[in-house]
Amino acid sequence: MSENATSTPTLKVKTIEWRDSDLTLLLIDQIKLPHHFENVECRNFHEAGEAIRTMIVRGAPAIGVTAAYAMALAALEYRNLPRDEFIEKLDEAGAWLNETRPTAVNLKWAIDQSLSLAHRLHDAYIQVVSIPWELLRLAKQIQADDLAFCKAIGAFGGELIKDGDNILTHCNAGGLATAGYGTAVGVITAAHEAGKKIHVWVDETRPYLQGARLTAWEMQQLGIPHTLITDNMSGHLMQRGKVQFIVTGADRIAANGDTANKIGTYMVAVLAKENNIPFYIAAPLTTIDLKIKSGEEIPIEERSADEVVFIGGKRIAPEGVHAAHFGFDVTPARYIHGIITEKGIARPPYEQSIPALFEK
Amino acid sequence: MSENATSTPTLKVKTIEWRDSDLTLLLIDQIKLPHHFENVECRNFHEAGEAIRTMIVRGAPAIGVTAAYAMALAALEYRNLPRDEFIEKLDEAGAWLNETRPTAVNLKWAIDQSLSLAHRLHDAYIQVVSIPWELLRLAKQIQADDLAFCKAIGAFGGELIKDGDNILTHCNAGGLATAGYGTAVGVITAAHEAGKKIHVWVDETRPYLQGARLTAWEMQQLGIPHTLITDNMSGHLMQRGKVQFIVTGADRIAANGDTANKIGTYMVAVLAKENNIPFYIAAPLTTIDLKIKSGEEIPIEERSADEVVFIGGKRIAPEGVHAAHFGFDVTPARYIHGIITEKGIARPPYEQSIPALFEK
Repeated sequence: MSENATSTPTLKVKTIEWRDSDLTLLLIDQIKLPHHFENVECRNFHEAGEAIRTMIVRGAPAIGVTAAYAMALAALEYRNLPRDEFIEKLDEAGAWLNETRPTAVNLKWAIDQSLSLAHRLHDAYIQVVSIPWELLRLAKQIQADDLAFCKAIGAFGGELIKDGDNILTHCNAGGLATAGYGTAVGVITAAHEAGKKIHVWVDETRPYLQGARLTAWEMQQLGIPHTLITDNMSGHLMQRGKVQFIVTGADRIAANGDTANKIGTYMVAVLAKENNIPFYIAAPLTTIDLKIKSGEEIPIEERSADEVVFIGGKRIAPEGVHAAHFGFDVTPARYIHGIITEKGIARPPYEQSIPALFEK
Repeated sequence: MSENATSTPTLKVKTIEWRDSDLTLLLIDQIKLPHHFENVECRNFHEAGEAIRTMIVRGAPAIGVTAAYAMALAALEYRNLPRDEFIEKLDEAGAWLNETRPTAVNLKWAIDQSLSLAHRLHDAYIQVVSIPWELLRLAKQIQADDLAFCKAIGAFGGELIKDGDNILTHCNAGGLATAGYGTAVGVITAAHEAGKKIHVWVDETRPYLQGARLTAWEMQQLGIPHTLITDNMSGHLMQRGKVQFIVTGADRIAANGDTANKIGTYMVAVLAKENNIPFYIAAPLTTIDLKIKSGEEIPIEERSADEVVFIGGKRIAPEGVHAAHFGFDVTPARYIHGIITEKGIARPPYEQSIPALFEK
């Protein structure tokens, strides 16, 4: 591991690692977790983009960090081109990367940050061959910031959890979904580190089973008591008084607080409201898309139905069955008790509280 | 196949079949469906009881029919015992059978019917060796009745479905869960047979995947347009206006209308209410337990957590993970638009409408 490697504290694997010695991006292959721990090496932006598309790396913040490195890789690839061709190719690379996943806004945010920097340097007549290194520095900064944001989110959110709480989480918003520590899992981890006795219900999160494969594994690594359940069990547990607090991550938050997150989050939020259980979102400000007024404008990714019909290569439904795979859903702001960010917790009405956090 | 075999109309497999030639109960192995079509032969009541426990046969009505045949098998086994020993052993067999699954009341109902008949014959000094044949006749009657009830349920319920409706169902309440035709699937089938253009969203129904394995397969056999989804997608579809009607089966209905059904049903019902979509239960009167005042008294089966952690023999979560498996949940009556039975549709308030159906 190179000396520039960033670490994901408390987890033994590194979600995203940049290796300076051979200018390679290393991603833990999250499709193969928890059974196999393998790194995927991305030596150009196409490989990094395909890793995002195929969900080798997933989780909105981790996708953002990966995209920033991918833009640096693109700049490295094009650094010997003429000035105007370089910036044109870089724009194309950004446009292509932006299509790899439609819902998580952190992807677009990181690409925009990189392109904006590249254009500023280009406009200032900085020589092209220098630009990749500036983009690489930016990617490292985005990665370091994300880790710091997660720690801050944990500090704010951990306070909301009481000793003895049973916490429910959906999908994986942990160290594996971020530069480290996690957003929703960061909140849980902070409560655990504060000595609170907690127990976590882990939704398995079909079809990709990020909860069963990733969050349950993270809970084991962190030593946090937990129980894995199927997604359709959470309502029963809420109804029977066995859930006191719910927190999930987010893929994109609209200006009014409506939140796109992994498919099934909306159902958890509705059940939480019905059973008077606080439901929180944990995400960095980079996940908030102020350009989008409400959740209705957030594009919902539809993925291959094979991901529903096959589990680990094994067919679970009859040949020829028609299936659908909606990757995300939108939880309207009225179901959300608060959005935990690195600048503090936004509370309803979000139209006022979210801009206030950005101004902090 | 014997001439006494009962058929499950429109489905090409027979869920439950009695073979007179060698006094054997044949069950289609529903664990292996849809990949393998194999019959399990039950030659004594222990084998039939184990088939219920291990979910080779499942679905409240089908469990009831199987239990009635199991009681006939027990009586056949004990028919050469002295009178008092015979009835004592039959009571023991009933008690043991009743423990194989705790939630579905049809199991208890069928055992009670069989024991009640056996005791009446015993008290009337009918010779013991004749009693098994009376119990066998009762089992065949229960099976034939169940099929007729399903057809009647379909006729009442099918009327509720409109041309063009998208219907959501959870778990399997089809021909495989009954003596044939199905309850919830019977309602859907009746609408389809009436020429209405419908489309069915099939919840996969983790952990056992009865929706993916059984309902999707039944939809294929019946030629009804359908789409398989994961359980956590139904809320998104309801929110986006893509579901107009919801119907599921039931494992036990309390006198007040509270309904125990496969885990996840409660979440579907809450989401339906939130999105103003009619949510119906379809079940024969044998599923209604008038002795139980409310859903809180219904025992909820907890099964092996291995059924969550392994899918088709493949481990989906890390070694050593703690998991839980709640088999059922209770949907409070306030979420239920109506209970479709063979005597008509009970509407709220159920305390009045349910007894009225029994008096019909």
